[in-house]
Amino acid sequence: MEKSACRHRLNAISDALYAIGGKWRLQIIVAMLEGTNRFNELQRSIDGISSKVLASELKDLELNGFIRRLVIDGPPVIVQYELTGYSHSLTSVLDALYEWGAQHKVEVKKGFASSQPVLNNE
Amino acid sequence: MEKSACRHRLNAISDALYAIGGKWRLQIIVAMLEGTNRFNELQRSIDGISSKVLASELKDLELNGFIRRLVIDGPPVIVQYELTGYSHSLTSVLDALYEWGAQHKVEVKKGFASSQPVLNNE
Repeated sequence: MEKSACRHRLNAISDALYAIGGKWRLQIIVAMLEGTNRFNELQRSIDGISSKVLASELKDLELNGFIRRLVIDGPPVIVQYELTGYSHSLTSVLDALYEWGAQHKVEVKKGFASSQPVLNNE
Repeated sequence: MEKSACRHRLNAISDALYAIGGKWRLQIIVAMLEGTNRFNELQRSIDGISSKVLASELKDLELNGFIRRLVIDGPPVIVQYELTGYSHSLTSVLDALYEWGAQHKVEVKKGFASSQPVLNNE
């Protein structure tokens, strides 16, 4: 692959990792898939997350189009979060990560005894 | 999906993100794909990485089986790094991240005007 094409590819991969990476984002999405929708419920269900960090992560997830924030008029006013249709576009990425991650755990336990070096120009 | 299966899946995905995530790891792998193999060369080719961080990241990449460290007797003694065959197991993950990341950039620019909320139990 040419260097510029390779850099372009790396940028797209970095964008993807930035959008879904970090300690909390996938945990928040999974909690929402499990039916947790309100701020306080989310905070209770995700071990160790502070309200400040949760608010910031929810904002980022909203900016990335994965969730939307709904304000339901009251009283009491209820704020809840929903996964968008767009969040389903992550399916193929999450499937690939899942398959590789599960296999990788097995390989780490085996200690990579059979890994072979490859040449850079392969 | 049941809650325990969902958690198991999340753990595998987190393992994968941990192995390849962060600011530097993919950049190091890409630099090695481009033919950069020695410590000083790697540090020069990756903008902003300190020698301490590079050493730590190379160690982690080695522990994860993606690279191997070779010491070639001298004088001078030469230390260089090679991608392993196992590093190629990342191909499907990187392909999925690349495709999604490239598409995501387009969606971010469009502002997600067409994203639809979905129900959690869908």
